[in-house]
Amino acid sequence: MALIVQKYGGTSVGSIERIEAVAEKVKRYREQGHRLVVVVSAMSGETDRLLGLARQISERPVPRELDVLLSTGEQVTIALLSMALEKRGVPARSYTGHQVHILTDNAHNKARIQEIDARKVREDLDAGRVVVVAGFQGVDEAGNITTLGRGGSDTTAVALAAALGADECQIFTDVDGVYTTDPRVVPEARRLDRITFEEMLEMASLGSKVLQIRAVEFAGKYNVPLRVLSSFEEGEGTLITYEDEDMENPLISGIAFNRDEAQITVLGVPDQPGIAAKLLGPVADANIEIDMIVQNVAPDGRTTDFTFTVNRGDYDKALEILKNVARELGAVEVSGDNRIVKISLVGVGMRSHAGIAATMFRALAEEGINIRMISTSEIKISVVVDEKYLELGVRALHEAFHLDQPAG
Amino acid sequence: MALIVQKYGGTSVGSIERIEAVAEKVKRYREQGHRLVVVVSAMSGETDRLLGLARQISERPVPRELDVLLSTGEQVTIALLSMALEKRGVPARSYTGHQVHILTDNAHNKARIQEIDARKVREDLDAGRVVVVAGFQGVDEAGNITTLGRGGSDTTAVALAAALGADECQIFTDVDGVYTTDPRVVPEARRLDRITFEEMLEMASLGSKVLQIRAVEFAGKYNVPLRVLSSFEEGEGTLITYEDEDMENPLISGIAFNRDEAQITVLGVPDQPGIAAKLLGPVADANIEIDMIVQNVAPDGRTTDFTFTVNRGDYDKALEILKNVARELGAVEVSGDNRIVKISLVGVGMRSHAGIAATMFRALAEEGINIRMISTSEIKISVVVDEKYLELGVRALHEAFHLDQPAG
Repeated sequence: MALIVQKYGGTSVGSIERIEAVAEKVKRYREQGHRLVVVVSAMSGETDRLLGLARQISERPVPRELDVLLSTGEQVTIALLSMALEKRGVPARSYTGHQVHILTDNAHNKARIQEIDARKVREDLDAGRVVVVAGFQGVDEAGNITTLGRGGSDTTAVALAAALGADECQIFTDVDGVYTTDPRVVPEARRLDRITFEEMLEMASLGSKVLQIRAVEFAGKYNVPLRVLSSFEEGEGTLITYEDEDMENPLISGIAFNRDEAQITVLGVPDQPGIAAKLLGPVADANIEIDMIVQNVAPDGRTTDFTFTVNRGDYDKALEILKNVARELGAVEVSGDNRIVKISLVGVGMRSHAGIAATMFRALAEEGINIRMISTSEIKISVVVDEKYLELGVRALHEAFHLDQPAG
Repeated sequence: MALIVQKYGGTSVGSIERIEAVAEKVKRYREQGHRLVVVVSAMSGETDRLLGLARQISERPVPRELDVLLSTGEQVTIALLSMALEKRGVPARSYTGHQVHILTDNAHNKARIQEIDARKVREDLDAGRVVVVAGFQGVDEAGNITTLGRGGSDTTAVALAAALGADECQIFTDVDGVYTTDPRVVPEARRLDRITFEEMLEMASLGSKVLQIRAVEFAGKYNVPLRVLSSFEEGEGTLITYEDEDMENPLISGIAFNRDEAQITVLGVPDQPGIAAKLLGPVADANIEIDMIVQNVAPDGRTTDFTFTVNRGDYDKALEILKNVARELGAVEVSGDNRIVKISLVGVGMRSHAGIAATMFRALAEEGINIRMISTSEIKISVVVDEKYLELGVRALHEAFHLDQPAG
């Protein structure tokens, strides 16, 4: 018998039939003796419908009122799920972000949770009720409704699990766990039974969008065991854990990739202190997110070369800004390519093992894939290659690191 | 410069275009120097959409959760209207029933307002903001969301006006005021500039469904001047006031009627104490509302005859119940007619004027209309006639009392 916080996303509660199916699932968990808190998102499509209404009024609706509007999406779901539970004889009670008192800062549309008063939830659990909580929303100190930004329901679930000291936080989604890589690219891709928080962070930020990165950070910070499972299929899913010293870590957990990348190179920038900030500041000011950054000393020794990647949608804008900045700074040349992709090897195990990079580069070379850029962290090696090599590269690495076979 | 509480119903905010039009209207009032609190309903159709979702799950959804669900309807409108106001440079702030703290009892789906903490509203008004409040909803002492039942938004507006000591509560609707009778029946029907609360209560309960009866009662109790106006046309509407001693009351204010009536007669009931309760109790227990009740001594002197009216939709059920009860009580006969209507003359003036009833009956007789039942109150005379005489009867009375001409 455990205290479990479950979270069901928009697709899992996307219709009345699916809400009934979630109620069935929750009922079964309860019959196994578990105490349950269920966090739900808005029914799929609902948030977009509401946003559409707001946009008919204004392209930039007042953030405070946008939160008042969007938070109704989850409120509808908690009511419907509670009705479906009660219909099955499962006592249930719904709570909005305000009612369960999920206190956030006042950054409307992207608020951060500061505190949860879980008293009411505990009382209901003690009374044998299933507690159904609206994800994605909270309330600031002045009582204004706030939202956590898209995908914030994962964070709500993790924060509730932390506040309640839950045994596990289960995120139900439309995939049945975290895979060694995208099964659509590599049919041999394997579901991982477990993965560390750090690996999950690298996987998430690299495009394996199973979980919201903020939720993973939050879970890591508060030591909440997190599990990703399928709403639609039975299975154990993938457990996301803290790195365990005793645990025999596989060298590599998975291969993430990102198709939406573009690369910009600035050649021959006079090498002086603060030059990186001068170059990249205007790009950041334009709200363009910069991903990889690589700097090399240029052949002449007095100038330096910068290469970095941005989201492909920002490419034209970033290139234009960079051309202006480069002219001011006296750089030699600005060039770019928006048909590149990033492939990353992720694994806590690579920390203590040499030779991972060499194996990676050799596997790519054997397929004739030219590496255009390399960036590394403690548990990740990323390379940028031509777009056309994406599938070939991912498959070659999956095979080279034997990811189709369970580790040790 | 006045403090005005305005209420816009579902049709008035039924689309983004209409919400924008309401924002324009509010802006104009504000530019005239008024301080404004605006209460809104759910966009028309939205409450039914939400009810439809709930009914897919259960024919009798848990009342607590139904309130959580339905209250989102108004929450959407307050957000959208506030956005539309802000877009026009009108500072605005929205509040849910919980946020403005409309405290109700815990009778879910039909809660009654107990108290309003108008502190926040006053602060916003002082800061020059328009305050936009969700109608129809509140919160009980335990923090559960409650709703006031259909049409409760009118009550919210009146209660806010009372709590704030507003100069006027304006109910914007799709008619431009209260008429002497239905203009679709009598083209000469005239909009009343003013009407007393008591008359309005009689008019409302008799089928002139311009205002919710509870709102009118509430306004009368707290002396809130209430005005009914059109959302779509300019005009002064109708002011609903307390009876003023100085005021020259017209004899008759208007003629109300109700098409949805059915009549049931029980003949020859043994005349004994408590017989009315024995007869009508089972009908009331079946949640059938009884309207007019007339009792007469039967010709034999030892039994009594009852006639009463119910809503036409309840006719078959009421008749069946009555037949059973009548058998038990030893009544002679039960008969009924579901093709009857009720026509009522309403006017505070009739209190102090004799001869009104005589004029009424004569006017009907001159048209050959047979009266089947009569019931009177201090400010109202109702008659039941055959359905086919409805229009003829209403027109005859409208003319007989010269309602097409402004009084005195």
